[in-house]
Amino acid sequence: MPRYKLTIEYDGHGFVGWQRQDNGVSVQAALEAALAPLAGGPVTLFAAGRTDAGVHALGQVAHLDLERAREPDEVRDSANHHLAVDGIAVLAAERVGDDFHARFSATRRHYRYRIVNRRARLALDRHRAWHVSVTLDAEAMHRAAQRLRGRHDFTTFRSSQCQAASPSKTLDTLDVERRGEEILIHAAARSFLHHQVRSMVGSLKLVGEGKWSGEELAAALAAADRTRCGPVAPPDGLYLDGVDYDSAD
Amino acid sequence: MPRYKLTIEYDGHGFVGWQRQDNGVSVQAALEAALAPLAGGPVTLFAAGRTDAGVHALGQVAHLDLERAREPDEVRDSANHHLAVDGIAVLAAERVGDDFHARFSATRRHYRYRIVNRRARLALDRHRAWHVSVTLDAEAMHRAAQRLRGRHDFTTFRSSQCQAASPSKTLDTLDVERRGEEILIHAAARSFLHHQVRSMVGSLKLVGEGKWSGEELAAALAAADRTRCGPVAPPDGLYLDGVDYDSAD
Repeated sequence: MPRYKLTIEYDGHGFVGWQRQDNGVSVQAALEAALAPLAGGPVTLFAAGRTDAGVHALGQVAHLDLERAREPDEVRDSANHHLAVDGIAVLAAERVGDDFHARFSATRRHYRYRIVNRRARLALDRHRAWHVSVTLDAEAMHRAAQRLRGRHDFTTFRSSQCQAASPSKTLDTLDVERRGEEILIHAAARSFLHHQVRSMVGSLKLVGEGKWSGEELAAALAAADRTRCGPVAPPDGLYLDGVDYDSAD
Repeated sequence: MPRYKLTIEYDGHGFVGWQRQDNGVSVQAALEAALAPLAGGPVTLFAAGRTDAGVHALGQVAHLDLERAREPDEVRDSANHHLAVDGIAVLAAERVGDDFHARFSATRRHYRYRIVNRRARLALDRHRAWHVSVTLDAEAMHRAAQRLRGRHDFTTFRSSQCQAASPSKTLDTLDVERRGEEILIHAAARSFLHHQVRSMVGSLKLVGEGKWSGEELAAALAAADRTRCGPVAPPDGLYLDGVDYDSAD
């Protein structure tokens, strides 16, 4: 069966997350319903990242199989046309080989976390960023963040509901950069544990306000103890930015 | 009475516009209500630009008078604290002299118009930009836009409901720039006619898709005839970016 790779943007606010759930509308369910007319029946999407409720995507990737081959642009346009809810868009569709799997073929996932660091409440960025009113030292956050890079047991930064087989992951990138009143954090790794990015950001915020030193962040990581994590950052500021695959895909 | 200048951000979606109206919530009414507790009674705000329904602001300016002097930061914080609706934020408050008037002292207004030029519908940018799916030539739009600069009778680009005494205005800047899939238009002038920016953007879009030449845009301007205007661009993409005042203010 012909397989298609979709690149998807969504505003996570108002969705229960990527994955189908009983308690509300998921991005997956909305997209699967939008793809059914073209497929001529039910379809199943497999996504690179199962984002939580309120988490956004600029470049989520998912794949699906169709009974019969279609032009990739037709797949994209039909999905967008049939979407019954706002806040989701299929940016691109490509034909891929049978060995492509959006989740298992991914070689790197990129997340962006946005903090708006100002006194005033958010207006245009509400539900789109974490509002932190106390002034943060982004350079101190960046320096401390480098202590989390590399291969570690990330138990401290892992949700108690995380289903990954192992707490060991390799964090390739964790950059913190101030742009005016905004602090942007870029995290990249082959894969992440559940709540890992938000847990790291919540702890980096403590560094930014001077409550933790870089040493203390490193000690929290080394403890491999969930109770040593700072308060988990809200989903509002988190974006799945993009997913890398080997060029052969 | 002590006078304060406020710098205000808002998401225009869901508001009937800046100005008080009977048919819904205005930004002005929401802010005046939020300022009443500190003022100890009703206050009146005077704004630099009376933005229409759906139009956003990154730097609207308004002034108000208080019975007794307050710390500017207290004015900002109290307004933000008492705002009963989402989507509005007071970014800054400053004490100004009695001769400062947000509307009449303004020497230049800056507007930004955002077009997202892509095939896929909008997700994160819905109600925040104009979605145009046909590919636009931003360079052609920029070249044509230069024909609108300077002092002209802008009747063609003026709403039939415009209350300005004269249709003659001096347009200082009209720049069109592509940044990836986004087209940004920056318009600056001492003042604008009602719907002038959206009317100019709607006509520039015709240039961008090759339906109008720069000559035809210039001819539409010269005709001083409202029926010669292209379809007015939607409010979703328009942002009041900022307002300049003489440094003495």
